[in-house]
Amino acid sequence: MRYELYYWPSIQGRGEFVRLALEDGGAEYLDVGRLSKRAGGGIPALMRLLESRSLEQPPFAPPFLKAGRLVIAQTANILLFLGLVPKNEASRLWAHQLQLTIADWVVEAHDTHHPISGGLYYEEQKPEAKRRAADFRAERLPKFLDYFERILDRNPKGSGYLVGKEVSYVDLSMFQMIAGLRYAFPRAMARLEPKHPRLVALHDRVSARRRIAAYLKSPRRLPFNQQDIFRHYSELDR
Amino acid sequence: MRYELYYWPSIQGRGEFVRLALEDGGAEYLDVGRLSKRAGGGIPALMRLLESRSLEQPPFAPPFLKAGRLVIAQTANILLFLGLVPKNEASRLWAHQLQLTIADWVVEAHDTHHPISGGLYYEEQKPEAKRRAADFRAERLPKFLDYFERILDRNPKGSGYLVGKEVSYVDLSMFQMIAGLRYAFPRAMARLEPKHPRLVALHDRVSARRRIAAYLKSPRRLPFNQQDIFRHYSELDR
Repeated sequence: MRYELYYWPSIQGRGEFVRLALEDGGAEYLDVGRLSKRAGGGIPALMRLLESRSLEQPPFAPPFLKAGRLVIAQTANILLFLGLVPKNEASRLWAHQLQLTIADWVVEAHDTHHPISGGLYYEEQKPEAKRRAADFRAERLPKFLDYFERILDRNPKGSGYLVGKEVSYVDLSMFQMIAGLRYAFPRAMARLEPKHPRLVALHDRVSARRRIAAYLKSPRRLPFNQQDIFRHYSELDR
Repeated sequence: MRYELYYWPSIQGRGEFVRLALEDGGAEYLDVGRLSKRAGGGIPALMRLLESRSLEQPPFAPPFLKAGRLVIAQTANILLFLGLVPKNEASRLWAHQLQLTIADWVVEAHDTHHPISGGLYYEEQKPEAKRRAADFRAERLPKFLDYFERILDRNPKGSGYLVGKEVSYVDLSMFQMIAGLRYAFPRAMARLEPKHPRLVALHDRVSARRRIAAYLKSPRRLPFNQQDIFRHYSELDR
C-alpha cells in the first residue's frame, strides 16, 4: 500500500516521528504537503482534507496518514497503526505508553518558546518563555532523560533498545528527541548527556541504520529551523 | 479480574477518566491511592511502585493500572487496553485518536493555571496564567468544542455518541471534560454551550447512565477542587 502523509511542508515537527518510521520501514509514501500544488500537494491539500465537510472522521490537526480508506491522526496513534513493534499485546501497550510519554515531552519542549499561545509570536511571550525554559532545563528535561535512561537500563533483553530485543518506532522517536534537544538546548544537553550514555548510544545507533542514514542525508530530511517545535534561542538555553 | 488503579487520593485528575470507564463497565477494582495505609494503600503504595527498582516497565507518572501482571500507564493507553469500543481496528483507532485529542485538551486546561511550572504554586505564576487563560477561552476552548460538536454531528450512525452506535469510553471522557470545564470556566462555558447542543446532550446522557449516576452520587466520586486539573479562579474566567 502506498501511504499518504499529510503534514506542514517546511518543518520537521510531529510529522518527523512518522517519517522516520516510514523511512526505516522502507515504506512507499507520498509526503503530500511537500508536493507541488500542481501535483495536488502543498498546504491546500492539507486544508482541503482538514476542512472537508464530507469526511466522517476528520483530524483535529496534522499530521495525519491516509492508508487506503483510513485517515488516521495523532502521531502516537499513527505509529501504533504502522506497527514496527513486537506483536504481543503487552509489548504493544508498553511501546505505546513510552510513545505517549515522548508526546508529552514534545509538548513541553514546544511550550518553552510558546508558553502562552501558539497563536502569538515568540517575541510576544519572551519573558514567560524565559521562565518556562528555565524550569524545563532544571526540572523537566533531566526528569524525562533520567526516565528513559532507566528504561534502557532495565530492559531485560539488554538490547540497548527501549522495547524488547529489536528496534521499534519508539527508538526512532527517541533519536529525534535527542537530535532536536541538541539543536534547541546545546548547552543544557552538553551538561546532561554524560549522565545519559545509553540514550546517546541509542541516538548514534539509530542514526547509523542504513535507511535512516540515507534518509538523513537526503533532501527529504528538512533541517531543524526556527519555525519548528525545537527552536534554538540562546536566552532559553543558559 | 480485579484491577488496581493507582492515582493520587485527593483529586479526580487524569485518574477520573479511568474511574468512569471502570465504573460504567461494572468492573471490580481497588482505588489503591484511596485505601488506608494500614490496608496497604495511600500515597506510599503509589510511590513504592513508581520508585521500585525491580519493575522492568515503570510508569512515568500516575495514573497506572495493574491488571494481573501488567502495569499500564498513560490514561489513553489504559482506556485503549480496557476496551469499551467497537471491536474493529478502524473504530478502535478512531476512538483512540479522539481520546488523544481529549488528552491534549486536558493539558491545555491544566496549563491555564500552571503555564510556567507544575512545581510552582498558582500564585507564583498568576500574571502568566491570566494571559494563557485568556487565550484558552478565546481560541482553544471554542476550537476543541467546535471540533467535538462536529464529530457528533457527522457520526453517520446519528447516535448522539462520538464513535459508532453505542457509548464508548470517549463519551465518558467527554462528560468529564464538560463537567470539569463548567467547574473551572462557568462564565465562558455559559457563553459557549448554546452553540454546542450535541455536547451538552451527550454530557446529560452519560450522567444519566445507571452506573454513572450511582457513581456520581457515591463517596467514590471526589468533588472538583482547587488542587485538581480543573480549577476555578474567577480572574481566569472573564
